[in-house]
Order: sequence, then C-alpha cells, then structure tokens
Amino acid sequence: MQGAPGELLLAEIREQPEALNRLLDREADIAAVAQAMVERKPSVVRLVGHGTSDNAASYGVYAFGLLPAWTALRDSISLTVYYNAQIDLSDSVVIALSQSGRTPDVVEYVTRAQDRGALTIALTNEPDSELGRAASAVVPLEAGPERSVAATKTYMNQLAALALLAGGAAGRGAELADGLRRTAELLAESLDPLERTVPALAASFAFVGRMFVIGRGLEYATAREIALKLTETCRVAAEPLTATDLAHGPVAALDPLFPVWTIASADESLGAVVDAAARAREAGATLLASGSAAHLVVGASYALPVPEAPSPLLAPLLSVLPGQLFAWALAQAKGLDPDKPHGLTKVTLAR
Amino acid sequence: MQGAPGELLLAEIREQPEALNRLLDREADIAAVAQAMVERKPSVVRLVGHGTSDNAASYGVYAFGLLPAWTALRDSISLTVYYNAQIDLSDSVVIALSQSGRTPDVVEYVTRAQDRGALTIALTNEPDSELGRAASAVVPLEAGPERSVAATKTYMNQLAALALLAGGAAGRGAELADGLRRTAELLAESLDPLERTVPALAASFAFVGRMFVIGRGLEYATAREIALKLTETCRVAAEPLTATDLAHGPVAALDPLFPVWTIASADESLGAVVDAAARAREAGATLLASGSAAHLVVGASYALPVPEAPSPLLAPLLSVLPGQLFAWALAQAKGLDPDKPHGLTKVTLAR
Repeated sequence: MQGAPGELLLAEIREQPEALNRLLDREADIAAVAQAMVERKPSVVRLVGHGTSDNAASYGVYAFGLLPAWTALRDSISLTVYYNAQIDLSDSVVIALSQSGRTPDVVEYVTRAQDRGALTIALTNEPDSELGRAASAVVPLEAGPERSVAATKTYMNQLAALALLAGGAAGRGAELADGLRRTAELLAESLDPLERTVPALAASFAFVGRMFVIGRGLEYATAREIALKLTETCRVAAEPLTATDLAHGPVAALDPLFPVWTIASADESLGAVVDAAARAREAGATLLASGSAAHLVVGASYALPVPEAPSPLLAPLLSVLPGQLFAWALAQAKGLDPDKPHGLTKVTLAR
Repeated sequence: MQGAPGELLLAEIREQPEALNRLLDREADIAAVAQAMVERKPSVVRLVGHGTSDNAASYGVYAFGLLPAWTALRDSISLTVYYNAQIDLSDSVVIALSQSGRTPDVVEYVTRAQDRGALTIALTNEPDSELGRAASAVVPLEAGPERSVAATKTYMNQLAALALLAGGAAGRGAELADGLRRTAELLAESLDPLERTVPALAASFAFVGRMFVIGRGLEYATAREIALKLTETCRVAAEPLTATDLAHGPVAALDPLFPVWTIASADESLGAVVDAAARAREAGATLLASGSAAHLVVGASYALPVPEAPSPLLAPLLSVLPGQLFAWALAQAKGLDPDKPHGLTKVTLAR
C-alpha cells in the first residue's frame, strides 16, 4: 500500500513526544552506562556518526562540555579507519551513533577502538545490529521503527540519550530526566500550532534554491539538522554555518534570493546569533527566525517560535521541530515526497 | 590607485611558493615551539580559528593525528568564550589561527586558556597583534602583507606551519621541511599551466548557483577552503562535504544544474572519494575533478590535476591551488572583483 506523500514523515514527527518518553523509561540503564563512563575517567569522549547522527554528535560536544565539563569531539573516522593513525585510545570513551547500527565505517571504527582499549558505547535504534555487537555497551534509542528516510524521532532520542549520559556523568541524571519529561510535554503542545503554521509559510519558499541555516553553540547541531532535512527532502542547497562563520566569507554570497534561517534560543550565544542575522539582513537576505528567542531577530520576515525549554541545554530538542515540519511542508509545496528522497534509502551503506 | 579586478588575488596566489620559502627560513624557531609542545605532553591539541583559519585547522587534525599520533580537535570557541564551560585545559596545547591576530573571540579564547594553564601558540601573520601578545608562543606566518580579502598565501603558510609543528612533535621536522621545500617548487611549476587552463573551464560555470565540494581525510580541509573561496569571491553557494556525508542525505539534492567538485589525492581515503563521485554522477551532477588523482574520477567532465606531493601529508598544499585560481577566474567570468567581495573587509571583527 502506497501512502500519501509525507505521511510517514509527519507520523514520525508527531510521535516524538511518545518516543522520548519511551527512552526515559530506560533512565536507570542509561545511568549505569554513564557510571561506567565516569569510572573510566576519560581524557576525551569521541563521538562518531554520519549525517543526522553526526549532527546529534555536535550536540554531544556541548552536553559533555557543559555538564561534566569533559572534552568531547566529533572524531575523524578516516584517521582511524582509513589512515590507521596510532592514536592512544586507552583512556577514551567512544560514543558511536548509527540509527541502523550498520554504517560500515562507524562499525569499523568501533571495532578498532575496542581493540585498542577504549570504552565503546553504541547509541542505536537497533541494539542487535553489528554496531550493537561490536560495542562494549549499548544504549537503545527506543524510537520505534523509523520508516521515513528522513530521520526525525531517532535524532530526537539521540539528543536525549546524549543529554542523559552527560547528565549522569555529572551526577545530574535525574535532573536531566525530569527536564526531558517536561520537554516531551512541550513538544506535544507545540505540534498542532506549528503544523497549522508551516504550510503557508513554506509555500513562500517553493522556488528557493539555496539557504544558509545559522546557529551557534548548543544550537549549531540544530542548524546542521535543519539544513540536512531541507537538503534531503526539499532539494534545497541549505548549508549550516555558525553565526560567526557567516561573517568570515559566506555573507558575501547573500542576496534577496538567498534566505537565511536563524535559530535563536535564549542562551549565552544569542548575541552573536542576533548580530549575524542583522548582517545577513543588511546583505539583502530574507530572514526566517525560529527558536524560543525568534522574536529577538530584528527584520525577520517569517517566524516559527517554540516554547522555552526547561533549561537552555535542552533547547535543541524543541528548536529542531519547526525545521522538521517546515521540511515536510516545503517538500509538499514542491510536489516532492519527503518519505522518498531522490536517490536515498533508509540505511546508508556507503563508505 | 585602483587595480584591475582580481589583480591582488592573482599576485598573492602567484607569490605562494616564495611565501612558503620565507616560512621555511623560520624552521629552527618552529622546531623550538614544537619542542615546547612535546615537553607539555598534551592530552589534546585544541585548534581554534574562523573561516580560512578554521579550514587550516581541519588539516591540523590530520597532521597531528598522523605525525605524533596526538588527538587534535577543532575546539568549540563558544563553549569556553560564551558558555564559560569549566573544562580542564591544564594539559592542553592550544593553537590559535588568525591571519590578522585580531579575531575577537579567538583572542578571548586564548586569554582564557592561558589563564587556565594551557600552552598557547598563536599562528598569525601579525606577530605583534593582540593574539600574538596573548599567547605564550608565536609562530609568524611570514606570508607578507595580504591585501586581497580572500586569503590564499596565509592559508598556504598556515598548512605548512601546522605540518612543521606536527612534524617537529614527531621528531620528523627536518623531513617535513624538506618536503615543503620540494612542494614550493611543485607549486611554482604548477602555476602557469593552471593559470592558462582555468579561464575557459571557469566560463562554463558562470551561471552555477550551487555546488558541493567533496574531499575526505587530509583533503577535507581543501574541500572546505575551495568551497569558501567560491562562496566569498564568486557568490556560489558551495558547500564542503566529506565524501561519505554526501551519501547520507545531500546526494538527494543533486541534479544536472548542481555540479560537484571532487578532490582526489592518492592516499588511503581515495576509494571513498571515487565512490562518492560516482554516486554524484549517477544522480545527474556534472563532475569537476582536481588533485593528483583527478584522472581516477570516472565520468568527470572537467579536470584540474596537480602533481603528486612529496608525501600524501603535503598534498593539501598543492590541491588547493586549482581552487584558488578557479575562484579568481570564475569571479572574472561573472563580472565580479574577487579582491573586493560584497560586504567583506580584510579583517573580520564580528563576534
């Protein structure tokens, strides 16, 4: 049976509060993995993944930096897998992100890191996968089967799992879990109003060929994920940039046919984001603002606000929602089926 | 006096072999800084910079990973500067990259890292700058005054300085310096043929609005730098992607109006790059191939080959040259002055 275009994507976007609560039922298991990380006293946490999983890893850098004050990095997979660099991994924790658990070079990375003495943790929606078997610990994402090619609920639960691991490592796991429960409620409340708003707004973007999506700090992950959703489901060349990097070159490419999506959340990086949006506006770009501080983006022609999160650290879980729904609506406005992006399959086995 | 469009940029591209040799005259000074790094026994090397400097930092991740087998990361500036994360920096080496030495949040990052006990090194073309004064050691880039807004010779010397520091840290400084001397010769030999080739080739791209630039491993830095040059001087929305990330979503956006620039060098990541180019071609994209292994990119309509570097580690210094010259030629084909990109100034003081 063939569904309506975007039917799967919309159903999975709507399912996110419920998926998040399923992950929260695993709170105790995740706390145990966090405890194992603490016992390892890691010098660094190495996050590896591709696509949406790598976007979630961007969030992990901040979650670990801000909660246990650990250095986390999105590690180069090719250094270990292709170049066989002899970096000492014995005091590293590796967190490997793959929804399917089958991404070949992520599995290979984990296998090598495990051999070299790292503590390896798989964050995957398929605990019985190759990745799950290769790692020393598994955190199941509990997102339920994801059938749309464009990942949504698995991304949401990757962010939440990283927040719980980082919170647990800082001895603040219960606090984070409470915040996530409240975030699930806020997500549920936000769905209807956003779903009603996005179609008219997306229609204005039907002929847009390129966009920048800017965010900074915690929200850089959101900028990356919204840009990827627009690229894969709407065939828009959407590039994510940190607010500051926009000024270091790319601003020169802007004009009125080149809109800039600005993610504005109420945290310490907001000033830099608002400044960057002003520079983009000055260069002639049309601005779309989202996030809990969308109203502070001066000169924005379009706004997709979300409620403020229980803590700034959890804002990215809410901030991504307008992007997911906008991508769903824009694909439809362009006559595309976001459930079946051109040339993609659900599991990417590319090197 | 007003020069011809692109005059400054071309002069500085041509000056690169000479600039590289000026840096090599500092071999002993750079070796001393490398020695100080070794004595610190760093758990991680933190690289910070924006724009072109951040692209050079991508190269540093590989140079340090492959030579002394150290973990190097492009650190989040906002974690330290905006969020004031309390990460222990006492066993870190910081390498701060800023051509002008005036990038505000890079200076602020170094000031804070210095206070927290990190060994801080400034790589800058302006040793007497704020950044130079804030750091514990300075490596002068010796590129000479760079007047074109689009950085070229400072990028080249940032790569070379990182190679010398990483080589020195591995006890292989002299070997790297020899390789760089030979690279300067190869650059000088490559200039004329490429300068003659690029104008006709760039003319075919005059109406291109968006591109992907793909590279992997060592050449990911080159992909980022070529994309930035095209974006800032030619107003093309050029997004850099690792070869593998292309398959994780962005390939869905490709069509015959969306060319893909492929950087193919003869190293261990080549297979992944060639595969990614094949996928892009299958999706209908026109391929431009550059690098020493450009001829191995099947189905490429355009090629800008360069000589093989003395070692794979030095390939990025040669691979960037076709991109610099192509950007110069394409800007002219579009009637733009690459010396004066829209809305940019030489020193970016944006947060």
